[in-house]
Amino acid sequence: MRRSQFFIKTLTEAPHDETSTNAKLLVRGGFVDKLSAGVYTLLPLGLRVFNKIENIIREEMVAASGIELFMPSLHPKENWQKTGRWKTWDDLYKLKEGGKDLALGPTHEEIIVPLVKKFVNSYRDLPVALFQFQNKFRKEMRAKSGLLRGREFVMKDLYSFHADEKDLDQYYEKLKKTYTGLFGRLGLGGKTYLTFASGGSFSKYSHEFQTLTKAGEDIIYICDKCKIAFNKEIIRDIRNKCAECGNKKLREEKAVEVGNIFKLKDKYSKPFDLSFIGKDGKEKIALMCCFGIGLQRVLGTIVETHYDERGIIWPESVTPFQVILIGIPDKKGKKLQQVCEKIYEQLIKKNIEVLYDDRDASAGEKFADADLIGVPVRIVVSGKTLAKNSVELKNRHKKTTRLVKIDQLVSLFK
Amino acid sequence: MRRSQFFIKTLTEAPHDETSTNAKLLVRGGFVDKLSAGVYTLLPLGLRVFNKIENIIREEMVAASGIELFMPSLHPKENWQKTGRWKTWDDLYKLKEGGKDLALGPTHEEIIVPLVKKFVNSYRDLPVALFQFQNKFRKEMRAKSGLLRGREFVMKDLYSFHADEKDLDQYYEKLKKTYTGLFGRLGLGGKTYLTFASGGSFSKYSHEFQTLTKAGEDIIYICDKCKIAFNKEIIRDIRNKCAECGNKKLREEKAVEVGNIFKLKDKYSKPFDLSFIGKDGKEKIALMCCFGIGLQRVLGTIVETHYDERGIIWPESVTPFQVILIGIPDKKGKKLQQVCEKIYEQLIKKNIEVLYDDRDASAGEKFADADLIGVPVRIVVSGKTLAKNSVELKNRHKKTTRLVKIDQLVSLFK
Repeated sequence: MRRSQFFIKTLTEAPHDETSTNAKLLVRGGFVDKLSAGVYTLLPLGLRVFNKIENIIREEMVAASGIELFMPSLHPKENWQKTGRWKTWDDLYKLKEGGKDLALGPTHEEIIVPLVKKFVNSYRDLPVALFQFQNKFRKEMRAKSGLLRGREFVMKDLYSFHADEKDLDQYYEKLKKTYTGLFGRLGLGGKTYLTFASGGSFSKYSHEFQTLTKAGEDIIYICDKCKIAFNKEIIRDIRNKCAECGNKKLREEKAVEVGNIFKLKDKYSKPFDLSFIGKDGKEKIALMCCFGIGLQRVLGTIVETHYDERGIIWPESVTPFQVILIGIPDKKGKKLQQVCEKIYEQLIKKNIEVLYDDRDASAGEKFADADLIGVPVRIVVSGKTLAKNSVELKNRHKKTTRLVKIDQLVSLFK
Repeated sequence: MRRSQFFIKTLTEAPHDETSTNAKLLVRGGFVDKLSAGVYTLLPLGLRVFNKIENIIREEMVAASGIELFMPSLHPKENWQKTGRWKTWDDLYKLKEGGKDLALGPTHEEIIVPLVKKFVNSYRDLPVALFQFQNKFRKEMRAKSGLLRGREFVMKDLYSFHADEKDLDQYYEKLKKTYTGLFGRLGLGGKTYLTFASGGSFSKYSHEFQTLTKAGEDIIYICDKCKIAFNKEIIRDIRNKCAECGNKKLREEKAVEVGNIFKLKDKYSKPFDLSFIGKDGKEKIALMCCFGIGLQRVLGTIVETHYDERGIIWPESVTPFQVILIGIPDKKGKKLQQVCEKIYEQLIKKNIEVLYDDRDASAGEKFADADLIGVPVRIVVSGKTLAKNSVELKNRHKKTTRLVKIDQLVSLFK
């Protein structure tokens, strides 16, 4: 992509209405634009990152037998009354149309359960796991953490339906592993802990995935032996020691919840009477789990855990471009531009995602922008490098540069 | 895809709350599920079609220099007051959060103009064309045409920004051609007419793309010489003759508006003062066009123009699967299943999208479902075909079948 044909504008100053690091860097780098508190436009550069996050999650959900669908945002009031959440969910946006009340979907149990009820009659129709990427709406009074807490955000929500608890438990354990692998692929491995939290209605504990960052609003206690953590809300309950191994040396950290998984059991299937005929010919209520990930929050968390004083440092799996190509014109002007164009074409031909900063701007400006945008590899072509038939290569996370012969450059990329 | 591992349930009867052909067939075939009037879930089978429609449109928009982004649905009231549409747009969903009023976006001029204002300073920053695929919300009193008129639907909306009228006109003409090609790729070529309609504020006429179908709510008058049409609303204005060639023999048809394109000029850029410094150093207001396509409406229109008494007949470009594979077990039971499995694996290996109906169901049931779902090519393996080392091949839109040797089958598909 030639920068001149793209839609990027970086800012030298952080916007004064943003206090969080993720929003400051994402706005400065031209990834997102703030419309109002907790409501952001994904600009073209940000959408590239977002799509990569989405595709990684999609691949993992499909590998876990998930089948994708797409549900609406406008929900009839009746569905939410059936579970009682019309009254109890404080963050629900409500609207009127004619005489009817509607909710703007903050989650989709109330929609998917009656839907699946139409499809499931027998134990042979189970298990089934359905997921979507869909915009959620929640009245958030605390929308001050940039992308970490939004009033409107895309969520991947997967709902699984099971004939019995054994099957439910097996799938839940499977998805626990899927989530661990998934956050690893997203560049959050090593910093993300399976965390025991308060259980809700049915289980003693539920599980969250918490990523360590000082931007986090949660406090967790890590057991370094078991590599798991406990949310502060249950620390008294477990008497300040690891519930698995009894280790008393728990490490307190700030963290952000990047994913949560719930055994809902019959909490939502019961009110909608989602039943099926079991192997024994008797009617039973189907059991459910749900598995959520907020994509803007993941985006924000990746930034909070991958930056330095000059800008973002994207993990390779989600970087908007693999390479940024910069020419520093001097007396060799025309020759230099030809070399840049040639390298650009060669990289494109090899399916390398390259951002070519073809602007008429100073070296300092281009370098600062490259660091701010955070592409992992920077290629610089200058009069000095050309004199050695070379280009300068630099990894975003390293301080050192190295010269590479032009004819060997493209073979370095897979 | 094995049907047993997918999420399809067909209905033998059309749902009694649907009156339109598109909704009847899409619901019966397991493509969509109705949540409320004009609000549908895209089921996994429907989402496959939807994604193909989306990708074709995306390719065409990118080819027309469009850059993709993703804007929010929650809009501040102030943006809509600035253009006056807070009061004049009847279909606007309004909601409250704390003391603040919000609109649920039915379109995005009010959001993209102030956004682009932050990026455009000079004539060098123009032209620029931005687009998105984004859920729109409109209070629709007439939501009775199935997928053709929704209260919630995904729209591709592209907004272009220009330094002068000449550039605006050129881009508008270019996109006219893009749209014509695009609807052709979607299987609506030959039935879709560039149609002159009433002009709105600035141009004498605006342009719609209208597809002929008796399900359409619009009346258009076609000039068969010029291959263009005129919306009923302007027919008096043009004195019942073609505005291009004077032809008086205009053919009256029902049609559905699948796309619209507008020269907005400074209608929205002016209230937001989207100005730039021109080549002559003077400040000017940027000019705009917008280009919309409703995706659910396209989906519904494809169905309205591609069906027979047995179900849908998908165009190849948007079909959920290229091939449906059916085994009809008899005494040869096990051998037959092995052949089916082998063919299935071979097709998958060749990247052919195949739906393998591996259910334990009757031939009649499988045939009826295949016709209802509307996949273009049906492969049947039975004892009879096996006796000739063959399978039976049938195109959905033809009545005849033919035998093909098993070892020649896969080479028939590209």
